[in-house]
Amino acid sequence: MERTLDRINWPQDLKKLSIAEMYDLAAEIRQVLVESVAACGGHLAANLGVVELTIALHYVFDAPRDKIIWDVGHQSYTHKILTGRKDRMSGLRQFGGISGFPKYEESPYDAFNTGHSSTSISAALGLALARDIQKQNHAVVAVTGDGAMTGGMTYEALNHGGQQGCDLIVILNDNEMSISRNVGAMSSYLNRLRTDPNYNRTKEEVESALARIPGIGPNIARAAGRLKDTVKYLMVPGMLFEELGFHYIGPVNGHQLEVLIQVLTNARRMKGPILIHTITEKGRGYEPARQNPDVFHGVGPFNPDTGVQFPKSLKTYTEVFGEYMCEAASKDERIVAITAAMTSGTGLSKFARSYPQRFFDVGICEEHAVTLAAGMARAGLKPVVSIYSTFLQRAFDQIIHDVALQNLPVVFAVDRAGLVGEDGPTHHGVFDLSYLRPIPNLTIMAPSNENELADMMHTALATDSPVAVRYPRGAGEGVAVTRKRTVLPIGQPQVLAAGSDLALIAVGRAVSLAREAAALLTDRGLSVELVNARFIKPLNDGFIHNIATCFTRIVTLEDNAVLAGFGSALLEQLSQQAFHGDVLCIGIPDEFVEQGRVEILLELLNMEAESIVERIVGRWPELAGRITLELRKLGQS
Amino acid sequence: MERTLDRINWPQDLKKLSIAEMYDLAAEIRQVLVESVAACGGHLAANLGVVELTIALHYVFDAPRDKIIWDVGHQSYTHKILTGRKDRMSGLRQFGGISGFPKYEESPYDAFNTGHSSTSISAALGLALARDIQKQNHAVVAVTGDGAMTGGMTYEALNHGGQQGCDLIVILNDNEMSISRNVGAMSSYLNRLRTDPNYNRTKEEVESALARIPGIGPNIARAAGRLKDTVKYLMVPGMLFEELGFHYIGPVNGHQLEVLIQVLTNARRMKGPILIHTITEKGRGYEPARQNPDVFHGVGPFNPDTGVQFPKSLKTYTEVFGEYMCEAASKDERIVAITAAMTSGTGLSKFARSYPQRFFDVGICEEHAVTLAAGMARAGLKPVVSIYSTFLQRAFDQIIHDVALQNLPVVFAVDRAGLVGEDGPTHHGVFDLSYLRPIPNLTIMAPSNENELADMMHTALATDSPVAVRYPRGAGEGVAVTRKRTVLPIGQPQVLAAGSDLALIAVGRAVSLAREAAALLTDRGLSVELVNARFIKPLNDGFIHNIATCFTRIVTLEDNAVLAGFGSALLEQLSQQAFHGDVLCIGIPDEFVEQGRVEILLELLNMEAESIVERIVGRWPELAGRITLELRKLGQS
Repeated sequence: MERTLDRINWPQDLKKLSIAEMYDLAAEIRQVLVESVAACGGHLAANLGVVELTIALHYVFDAPRDKIIWDVGHQSYTHKILTGRKDRMSGLRQFGGISGFPKYEESPYDAFNTGHSSTSISAALGLALARDIQKQNHAVVAVTGDGAMTGGMTYEALNHGGQQGCDLIVILNDNEMSISRNVGAMSSYLNRLRTDPNYNRTKEEVESALARIPGIGPNIARAAGRLKDTVKYLMVPGMLFEELGFHYIGPVNGHQLEVLIQVLTNARRMKGPILIHTITEKGRGYEPARQNPDVFHGVGPFNPDTGVQFPKSLKTYTEVFGEYMCEAASKDERIVAITAAMTSGTGLSKFARSYPQRFFDVGICEEHAVTLAAGMARAGLKPVVSIYSTFLQRAFDQIIHDVALQNLPVVFAVDRAGLVGEDGPTHHGVFDLSYLRPIPNLTIMAPSNENELADMMHTALATDSPVAVRYPRGAGEGVAVTRKRTVLPIGQPQVLAAGSDLALIAVGRAVSLAREAAALLTDRGLSVELVNARFIKPLNDGFIHNIATCFTRIVTLEDNAVLAGFGSALLEQLSQQAFHGDVLCIGIPDEFVEQGRVEILLELLNMEAESIVERIVGRWPELAGRITLELRKLGQS
Repeated sequence: MERTLDRINWPQDLKKLSIAEMYDLAAEIRQVLVESVAACGGHLAANLGVVELTIALHYVFDAPRDKIIWDVGHQSYTHKILTGRKDRMSGLRQFGGISGFPKYEESPYDAFNTGHSSTSISAALGLALARDIQKQNHAVVAVTGDGAMTGGMTYEALNHGGQQGCDLIVILNDNEMSISRNVGAMSSYLNRLRTDPNYNRTKEEVESALARIPGIGPNIARAAGRLKDTVKYLMVPGMLFEELGFHYIGPVNGHQLEVLIQVLTNARRMKGPILIHTITEKGRGYEPARQNPDVFHGVGPFNPDTGVQFPKSLKTYTEVFGEYMCEAASKDERIVAITAAMTSGTGLSKFARSYPQRFFDVGICEEHAVTLAAGMARAGLKPVVSIYSTFLQRAFDQIIHDVALQNLPVVFAVDRAGLVGEDGPTHHGVFDLSYLRPIPNLTIMAPSNENELADMMHTALATDSPVAVRYPRGAGEGVAVTRKRTVLPIGQPQVLAAGSDLALIAVGRAVSLAREAAALLTDRGLSVELVNARFIKPLNDGFIHNIATCFTRIVTLEDNAVLAGFGSALLEQLSQQAFHGDVLCIGIPDEFVEQGRVEILLELLNMEAESIVERIVGRWPELAGRITLELRKLGQS
């Protein structure tokens, strides 16, 4: 049987459908969503929630002439299906496939790239102001979520947009949670809007209704002295947005196509900044996701019939961090944990349950999170702020200005450092070593396995100055976490194997790669000194001196940008030692890295073990000669 | 005659004064403020505005047990005078003297260091939550301004604080402007609060007044169905703050000590988060500052009798930037300028007047400013975002995620780069080269003189990808800006003098230092290749190859952190060329640099010309031998 979806390739195809057909379409799209995400992994619950909203948007507006910007962007799958990409959904988030986020380079329908939260209204306002300056005429729509409303940038953009007064439509897609359940006073405010029966009407309705009640209006007017505002205050919802200069419409049921289409059609005709508050349900139409929207926020492949995710073989670094935090908190009452809307993602769910008074989910507010931690550290607590590497970029100034400048003992647990895989360039955590390194007073470590992560957290909490511990996404190395914790000597790398031909110094997850490469080189008869750096900053002078004295060939290996990263740190210190040998720095090159499985990406970047060996031998051809010699010897014997 | 101030050394001394004596004290403090700032330079207008507020705070609260946190902190001079530092006001902002900002290391009365905007409520909330966890009992007060209210962090902290519900007092010191006149819908909102006569009462007054009017209350109740909220909505000001969970009190006249003391005393007894809205006048009590508060926001030394600032001898980089922008805008309609509350500080006042439709002051919102620019660039404009180096740290993630990742042609005019002098460690712009360098797609330049700044802006606007141009605070080199603009070849340094003993490669303002050092070295008979790097990224491979081939001694000089800075970039590229010589990297060491005149700081850091020469000769003692030889030859001849 032909599906409605089979007739829909582009937004204009939608405009021929009846409402009933659109509901069929919505059901079909939900099936595609579940199948695609079950196969490829990705964001499911949020996408299931905005199917009708997306259909209505493309029915009413004329993209790509009209610009639609998706905040965070992980809810743009239906948009992709409706804008020429339905056949590519099987390659979603895969290497060479379509992105899980809006991407202008992929389609002009993706008006602006997103990935991090709370940027859409700023970008949309930029597009709207540029439109007015250039005397063009099209709509600009930002679709943001209640989670993004907790981020300060959203407020900055609303404040500026309200003042500019240009035509701009903001859709607040309110599903009562961001990734974890939402936090903050704004969240309570939205909840009041949602649940108060008096709220569910437009200002015009209220005004006309009041006008028909004899006496009441004038009485109020006399009491308050300003009828219009009074009427608004009395029963119009969204005053907070109205105060910021936006015309508020809502709340609107985000699953009723008739209503959505009518509201959007009206909004398209209205002037000035408008905020439409739609209520949607995360996970709608797929019971496992509706029941557990946080589990189905971002998932790996799963069985679509049962919703059961395929089991992971090894414990993740994130889990080890979470377990360490619980253990440490039981022994030291000063330890508190802070997350920016990533309780589960950062492994802190158990901590949150065990120590609710010492756990703080501040919403999508990395900046506030870090300065809050600084305040707590000043008052004698030991705050641990756990934020993904790419999102910690948001708090760069606060790390410098509020933490490091006062040398406050805040611990940064930097999760998802290095390549993250399918989430792609907006999410790779490949800059943290570079941006953290120039910050005075900061110690930076990276564990090469799970047990070392626990020891590094232990070391960090024993240090009376700021410390960052960065560790990767996903499974660890399968190393058991011992019961006894060790405070590591600050700045001291760990020599894993002694050698003489070259020193291979690796950081964090790259240590396992280095181990593989060293094994290949050893097989070829070379003698490799293998070092686990452990510390990016400081680096023990004695160690640098030894390396500089004993080796003329040094290789650094890291899953951070090669610019300003660990290799760069080593070069700086070696230059002080008047080192006259060669250093080969291997790391992420100076480009944004695509999406795909980490193994594929490493290959693409010539960073898997065999490429590393090739690069080493390419750099020092005399080693290749040695290898040939060794192999000949082997052949002769 | 003995002044009241002579009897006041610490806050407890205040508590013996009558209200009349406190007014005398206020007048005396204003005199000290004008004299100190006239002599030392500093922030005047803001300090003159909060004299009574500060007296009242220290009268009511018991610092340092009670914690007072000053947002931005440039309004803390009266606080310093009242907390044991009145005799040190003559050394304000000078090297070795007291800081112009709160500094915990200077006094325990400075509960938390500040310098950048909008951090105080986050820090205060951290202190308050830590107090509750540790079962302590003291007040925490954040004093913030209406300018800081435009920053998203303030909103993040209010949102979180409102939800936590802990005891916390926020004083919104509203002087109707931040540095330039305030912008945004929040500003209009505050203005409505200030001017509406119905607003000037507390919720309790309104409730009791309404209860006395027969019939009205119940009528409203019937109409709206919720008496309490209706009453609040009807006539209580600050609903926006109330919606965020704060109890709003105000507006309060911030110059009436009686009222301030009463309100603060009440607030101290109340539970939960409280926001007190005080209205103050910037520059109060000193006519020149009252008339021109933006001129007297931050000033250099001036004549206290007339308010006339001592004339500057040379045009500043900032002025040259501003003039270039006006000229460029007249030729290209796509050029727009964006500032984050620094219209005058970034030299854009004339641009703002000449091109009001193409000028955007977004408030203290660096994050929004950058993403707004990205939106505009996407739509075909050529946005120039002018932000101080230290404040651009706030937008680090937006530069990566919203600009560079999409390779959008946004130009960053990074003012106040390098050491800024008396504003000290919170304001030195010594990290930008380090944090910008790892960002893919970004070109980074630094001019060595005014004319080059104009050419670099011209080059930046001719480039179809993101570009940062970083330039220092204060006077240029006295080089005339020519009429003809040149597009510089990307990545190509400028060789200023050929030499053979060593290559001295300098960046931006450090070029003039390098010139001096080179002259000293040449005087001593050495042959120095002097290079103006111009580009930090990219660096022309051919140039690197040449340098690597021709020299075994290379010196880099920059007024950026030596960690991950320009020297580090050169090391990275030289390591690829298998350079076997020596590199000496001179720059800001890995520490936060104190306040003081830039010349003094350079001396402190061994970065003035003579120290540079010593460091070069110290690194290569064979040069010293050569120098002695040359000098001997000179003696013989």
